[in-house]
Amino acid sequence: MGQAGAGPVNPESDMRGAQAILHTLADSGVEVCFSNPGTSEMQMVAAFDREPRVRPVLCLFEGVATGAADGYARMAGKPATTLLHLGPGLGNGLANLHNARRALSPVVNLVGDHATYHRKYDAPLASDIAGQARTFSKWVQSAETPDDAVRLAAEAVGASLGPPAGVATLVLPADVTWTETDARTQAPPPAAWAAPDEAKLRGVAQRLKAARGPAVLLGSSACGEAALAAAARLAAAGVKVMCDTFVARMARGGGRFEPERVPYFGAMAIPALAEVDVLATVHSKPPASFFAYPNAPSAFLPAGAESLSAAEPDEDPSAALTMLADFLGAPAPLATAPREAPPAPTGDKLNAHTVGAWVARLLPEGAIVSEDAATSGLPVFVQAAAAAPHDWLFLTGGAIGQGLPVAVGAAVAAPGRRVVCLMGDGAAAYTPQALWTMARERLDVTVVVYANQKYRILGIELDRTESGTPGPAALGQLDLGDPALDWTSLARGFGVEAVRVGELAAFREAFESAVRTRGPRLIEVMLP
Amino acid sequence: MGQAGAGPVNPESDMRGAQAILHTLADSGVEVCFSNPGTSEMQMVAAFDREPRVRPVLCLFEGVATGAADGYARMAGKPATTLLHLGPGLGNGLANLHNARRALSPVVNLVGDHATYHRKYDAPLASDIAGQARTFSKWVQSAETPDDAVRLAAEAVGASLGPPAGVATLVLPADVTWTETDARTQAPPPAAWAAPDEAKLRGVAQRLKAARGPAVLLGSSACGEAALAAAARLAAAGVKVMCDTFVARMARGGGRFEPERVPYFGAMAIPALAEVDVLATVHSKPPASFFAYPNAPSAFLPAGAESLSAAEPDEDPSAALTMLADFLGAPAPLATAPREAPPAPTGDKLNAHTVGAWVARLLPEGAIVSEDAATSGLPVFVQAAAAAPHDWLFLTGGAIGQGLPVAVGAAVAAPGRRVVCLMGDGAAAYTPQALWTMARERLDVTVVVYANQKYRILGIELDRTESGTPGPAALGQLDLGDPALDWTSLARGFGVEAVRVGELAAFREAFESAVRTRGPRLIEVMLP
Repeated sequence: MGQAGAGPVNPESDMRGAQAILHTLADSGVEVCFSNPGTSEMQMVAAFDREPRVRPVLCLFEGVATGAADGYARMAGKPATTLLHLGPGLGNGLANLHNARRALSPVVNLVGDHATYHRKYDAPLASDIAGQARTFSKWVQSAETPDDAVRLAAEAVGASLGPPAGVATLVLPADVTWTETDARTQAPPPAAWAAPDEAKLRGVAQRLKAARGPAVLLGSSACGEAALAAAARLAAAGVKVMCDTFVARMARGGGRFEPERVPYFGAMAIPALAEVDVLATVHSKPPASFFAYPNAPSAFLPAGAESLSAAEPDEDPSAALTMLADFLGAPAPLATAPREAPPAPTGDKLNAHTVGAWVARLLPEGAIVSEDAATSGLPVFVQAAAAAPHDWLFLTGGAIGQGLPVAVGAAVAAPGRRVVCLMGDGAAAYTPQALWTMARERLDVTVVVYANQKYRILGIELDRTESGTPGPAALGQLDLGDPALDWTSLARGFGVEAVRVGELAAFREAFESAVRTRGPRLIEVMLP
Repeated sequence: MGQAGAGPVNPESDMRGAQAILHTLADSGVEVCFSNPGTSEMQMVAAFDREPRVRPVLCLFEGVATGAADGYARMAGKPATTLLHLGPGLGNGLANLHNARRALSPVVNLVGDHATYHRKYDAPLASDIAGQARTFSKWVQSAETPDDAVRLAAEAVGASLGPPAGVATLVLPADVTWTETDARTQAPPPAAWAAPDEAKLRGVAQRLKAARGPAVLLGSSACGEAALAAAARLAAAGVKVMCDTFVARMARGGGRFEPERVPYFGAMAIPALAEVDVLATVHSKPPASFFAYPNAPSAFLPAGAESLSAAEPDEDPSAALTMLADFLGAPAPLATAPREAPPAPTGDKLNAHTVGAWVARLLPEGAIVSEDAATSGLPVFVQAAAAAPHDWLFLTGGAIGQGLPVAVGAAVAAPGRRVVCLMGDGAAAYTPQALWTMARERLDVTVVVYANQKYRILGIELDRTESGTPGPAALGQLDLGDPALDWTSLARGFGVEAVRVGELAAFREAFESAVRTRGPRLIEVMLP
């Protein structure tokens, strides 16, 4: 049953679909599977012992698995798989797959299904898995035979990598995983970025040269180290360099050049863009409001400003930026500015700003920040611009509950680096089960939960949407204080050591200790 | 802008879509909204203060909101709404909407979306909401104007009620909720069941009469008090009365007639059905295995057995059963057997069986049992057949993590009745946030978590799927013991009082006290 052109044939005569799929995934570079399996995935589970190159990481909830796969992909640059239990399992993972799609993260979902011959019974767990997967996947297939599954597993890895990268979902009926096969193959080497379009870029460079307010806007894939170094040349040539409000990963700190994020709120974004008359986008699009509001514009660019695409999502963003810099006669990359540690906060009041100052100042070199802290995240971000070199992972798709799972995945992808996970209490309550996987895998994650006992961002949004003066029912919908969530108890319940701090000095001490200690720890910051 | 045939016009000149929608829902009989709102739902949130007939119940996670709406519907017989934040919010609610679909529960999802004119910007939170909703909804619409929304809100309530009932999803773009309107309408009175088909039932009765092994099989809507009383007559006439393994709600205890559940495992189900040669289904279909297994049949009926539909999903199940009993010349309903309390367990060993004996014996009259306890649930179910009258709510769609949310909804629907929620520790870890809503709303829910620190059912399934002798990697995927979940800490973290018991006497005491005390309490049972 081996396929023409398949990889090495496995010598074991009893090899089943599940094992063949795992071998193929491992041969294709997959090293991790974030899993929450059920009965239909038992063959895949059993196969983990026969393919030690794929590390299974158990999650208590599928949204943890999918968010972890996203975090892994952002750091590893290649896909992990998830292993999910039919349509409901995929459904539980959907919100973080939405975020992964917006992050352009390569992810391969393996979704178990009923055996092919069992479908006609419409058993209780049956549902339209593919229909669901299509809403966030760039590639969806269902295997009908084990040979099929092997071929499709390799194809899924390739599809997830793109470029542009994205989510691939492979449905695996149970009989496909238990039927014997000797098929084996592997994904072709990842496709390279398309070369930038020189003619187009000459035109873009001309428009930028002629502009009074030239600007470039960088998307998720254009905020890595190389792209930012090229963008720094553009900045030196007088181009305003901005990036999307929420990108998948930004290399920053340590004196690196930092693009200006498009502010979240229009009241700040519109002034920030007011002087721009030509905008060149690199894997992005003209900036628009995250939400619409009554009596407020959705688009942020001034009327009459021109927007041009400098690089499409499949074109090499760093090469495009370099070429653009060359065409603009921009100077060679500047030496990075000497780093000065962020200052300690003045005073001893505990608030999001002072806590942010300590996080920034104490951030270990090479840290990875997974941020899902809404109103409390920005003060850290701003102050950490001067911090030690680090990577910042943003909430890309707006589906809160991403931060803890992404931290899990980042820590699995980058052992030896400290992950700092900044969470609003509201956001942390979506996927607290991630804490358990941190404890189980002894991941070096320091979690900071900002406990303000409310959906504070919604208090702001309630006002901005001109919903009128809120009454008690409306205010109750934003309030997390009755009962107050006790994050130290929750953390301990999931097996993670935790401490609650109500004073700034205590926070400093707890954070300094946590980032130096192996394994996970949670700090609950009681905001006033 | 009022619609022809609309209900009373609201006198307020500043009425907006959100308020008009809530008025219409309230006029249509909706009393509760299980919510987890975001920015796009702020107008709906603000409107809660202007429509006090709809009670907003905040949930920390959308799967709690959708599961609660399911539990509410099972007890109230009418829909609650959910209020969810765009595609990711609906996604987080998907697994329990799958269960609701399988329970034939009426549920109306209100899903906020970007303003209609904002869609073209493909903002980060944008996704294919309708495509996702169609996988579990019988009715999906998106409103384009507030007048539209009002009309569709009433239509959604009607669609959810059926019969057969199901999930209706209405997408509400933000501008629809903030634009002024004076539209108002209400859902038509719920459609009645279709009358049973007399000619068809005469034929079915004839076939049953002629059979050597006549049987009826009851589905979710055929296990209420009236249907079971009619089914009892069939049993007295020599017909084997069975029901689906997992139904939405079964009225039982107190000497009520109890149908025989189709066993979950084929090894027991096939013998149970071996003598059946004619099966009449009432809102059900020929029994089949929950999952497929290698070398095991998917269908449970013996070869050659005949299956006939006695009542389609829109036909009145109780009337059909009564008519069938009449045609079979079945005796009048039997007096219910005098009730004898379930016996106390013998011995003092703590295990699922002895714990189940105490739960059954101490179950308060009128209790509602929400069960999602996999291997630990059956011993309670079996022993509670002799318990005080109660309703049992099953895990209908196989998506574990239903039990706690369904308990929330049942408690909201039936104040004054004790809800007993039986959870496996694995299942409870999917939606523990439900505990917070129990505390916040002071719901009378007694939660029993069976802590065996593993996905025990999967150990059985691993074997049944013939996956081979599991190695350490496979066994690790079934193990929840490293670290052990601490359910008393988790409960306290969510604001619910909790106690851990490792001895049977302690369980008895804790359970007896909990079911007599107002408000929620959690008992963690440390299974050996």
